[in-house]
Amino acid sequence: MDSFEYVRSLCTAAKNAAPGFSSAPTAAKNAVLGRMAELLSDGKDEIIRANRLDLSLAAENRVPAPMLDRLKLDEKRIDSIAASLRELIQLADPIGSGERTVRPNGLVIERIRVPLGVVAIIYEARPNVTVDAAALCLKTGNACILRGGKEAINTNRALVSAMRKALAENGFAPELIGLVDDTSRESSTALMRMRGLVDLLVPRGGRGLIKSVVENADVPVIETGAGNCHLYVDASADLDMAVKVALNAKLSRPSVCNAIETLLVHEDVAAEFLPRFVASLTHPLEIRGCERTRELIDCLPAAESDWDTEYDDYILAVKVVSGIDEAIAHINAHNTQHSEAIITRSMANAERFRREIDAAAVYVNASTRFTDGGEFGFGAELGISTQKLHARGPMGLEALTTTKYLVTGEGQVR
Amino acid sequence: MDSFEYVRSLCTAAKNAAPGFSSAPTAAKNAVLGRMAELLSDGKDEIIRANRLDLSLAAENRVPAPMLDRLKLDEKRIDSIAASLRELIQLADPIGSGERTVRPNGLVIERIRVPLGVVAIIYEARPNVTVDAAALCLKTGNACILRGGKEAINTNRALVSAMRKALAENGFAPELIGLVDDTSRESSTALMRMRGLVDLLVPRGGRGLIKSVVENADVPVIETGAGNCHLYVDASADLDMAVKVALNAKLSRPSVCNAIETLLVHEDVAAEFLPRFVASLTHPLEIRGCERTRELIDCLPAAESDWDTEYDDYILAVKVVSGIDEAIAHINAHNTQHSEAIITRSMANAERFRREIDAAAVYVNASTRFTDGGEFGFGAELGISTQKLHARGPMGLEALTTTKYLVTGEGQVR
Repeated sequence: MDSFEYVRSLCTAAKNAAPGFSSAPTAAKNAVLGRMAELLSDGKDEIIRANRLDLSLAAENRVPAPMLDRLKLDEKRIDSIAASLRELIQLADPIGSGERTVRPNGLVIERIRVPLGVVAIIYEARPNVTVDAAALCLKTGNACILRGGKEAINTNRALVSAMRKALAENGFAPELIGLVDDTSRESSTALMRMRGLVDLLVPRGGRGLIKSVVENADVPVIETGAGNCHLYVDASADLDMAVKVALNAKLSRPSVCNAIETLLVHEDVAAEFLPRFVASLTHPLEIRGCERTRELIDCLPAAESDWDTEYDDYILAVKVVSGIDEAIAHINAHNTQHSEAIITRSMANAERFRREIDAAAVYVNASTRFTDGGEFGFGAELGISTQKLHARGPMGLEALTTTKYLVTGEGQVR
Repeated sequence: MDSFEYVRSLCTAAKNAAPGFSSAPTAAKNAVLGRMAELLSDGKDEIIRANRLDLSLAAENRVPAPMLDRLKLDEKRIDSIAASLRELIQLADPIGSGERTVRPNGLVIERIRVPLGVVAIIYEARPNVTVDAAALCLKTGNACILRGGKEAINTNRALVSAMRKALAENGFAPELIGLVDDTSRESSTALMRMRGLVDLLVPRGGRGLIKSVVENADVPVIETGAGNCHLYVDASADLDMAVKVALNAKLSRPSVCNAIETLLVHEDVAAEFLPRFVASLTHPLEIRGCERTRELIDCLPAAESDWDTEYDDYILAVKVVSGIDEAIAHINAHNTQHSEAIITRSMANAERFRREIDAAAVYVNASTRFTDGGEFGFGAELGISTQKLHARGPMGLEALTTTKYLVTGEGQVR
């Protein structure tokens, strides 16, 4: 069986299983999640054994250290995955809720939340995503197809096996969770072409993956994760706050999409702010500055391409701007519509920034690092959407649902 | 300038004009709509002259009569277009509304409705769509690009000229409404490839257009209008009601997407229902029946392909089924997830139909013809979405918006 046929068979099995699960009561879905948590905890040894195999193969293949770290599972991490399943149980189930109106002709129109059907996720070698994504899909009555990074395949097999067991023990079809065991590039492309079988595809990964999906997919897609984020320090900013937020937004976790890549500084405060920022650095940081920045601090020169680069690393572009007009224009010209922040005491400038910046999340006097399902109070997230349709920003449970109109009459005609 | 460059220049102009309009107060947007209504009424003679030119060219080109009828504008139709603009003024403006939460760390998170940006519509030679679509976009703070059918180009020029005048008179950029004056196939394809300039493309038209958009578009799309709709007459149905609803759902306007194409009849009532239905027909109807249907009424034989055909005409496929299981299976195998109806007195069967049918609108004891923005109380619609992402069913004002998170802090870091 080639990759295409293999992926089609997985998707078909999920599609066929989905209707029998779509209106499962919340209690039944929560029972599956609870049992998943138990089986993952009970199966720790086996999961860690599978993970060690992946880790040693990855080390042989000279996978970079940060990726090895994301791939690694230990007792503590498995406990934390199980804990997040138990938290998910506590969240309200959006399925079935809705609004009701009565039309003048007596027709009752209800609009209710229903599952999407089959949700596919293409992601990197991060085993926690395997469980998070499957759990979010199950909580919302969806089937899911998981296509994780090849480096994590043994770990994913162990995790999916435990999760499918939890489904079967609760009387549901194990096919509701499909693992794409063929981690060739072809299997990924095949998943993008499953029109009629896949109701939503969420690519989580770098620009290459997102670009490939946008170009190849004929299934509905939500783009996630591209984060060329900015922090603008306004003339009226509290500079202590500005230093603290800039350090956090850049250094607390440079590899993630909600970290900033470019710092914009108002010319009136640049001479005071920039040296203080540099003096406060808690980690070595490569700064690539515009000409005016280079007059104020010691750094490399920024090229035009730096304004469009998502480093995901200990590198920061810095530009001195003439004011909020230039800051807003620069951001809207270069950002990926993810998260943008201003530090200011000016109400007028805060309001302009909020109104004119085109992004999923616009911050005033806070770090961009808060763009996250957990931090926003959604309990969990499937990714951070950088598109405008259907879901924007952290995707919680509601993003995994659609609506259906139920119209009830007594023989009304038009 | 080739089609691609021409379309790009229109979209760029709209994109540049959009930010200056996106947060216009509701009163200012309503003033534009009101002035549009006045200018369309005042300019009736000119519009009708342009329309006569289109009609005579279309007649020369042997455009079919139903299409000529949709293309035609007279005083009454222009009055009705102006009246629908005045109705739109009365509708609540979704822009700026939203929810607010405060996180434990004091961060205030607001989620507000904002315009999408630039909305493009590709549609047939229906001049009323030109005004409806532009007005819905303006009411929600969006710019729009209109690519209407070539047969209506003179009419569309006159309508768009009046609408742009209303924008300019109210101090807004006329580029907020762009008319694609080049009606070549290339201009349509170009519009599908304006990634970064077009935030949403809505194709309104036949399957060929939808298919072309799905295959070619790299901009976000909402599919509309494919309507292979069914009516299922259950064993417990009130047969008088069933006859009345079947006649309405098929004959009141066969060319529209919410008309039914296939009638499914429970075997226990088929012998009574089908002859009564045929005897009640108010218009000649070609019936294509399954074998069991042909034993009960005089009709043509249905081929397998009939179950998947959207006739949009005085043709109806009829199938006798063994019960609700077969009815639901048939519908989910062949429908386009638009509108599906059951006539029944059984609460259990009504509930199963509602739960198991996968469609934007599921009807119990009412005609599928009600799937319409006006009938649902939305005041107007941009089309009827048959997809699950972002918008499902009639697309009113909310479907033309997205959301933005505004996060306000006092220097919070993570």
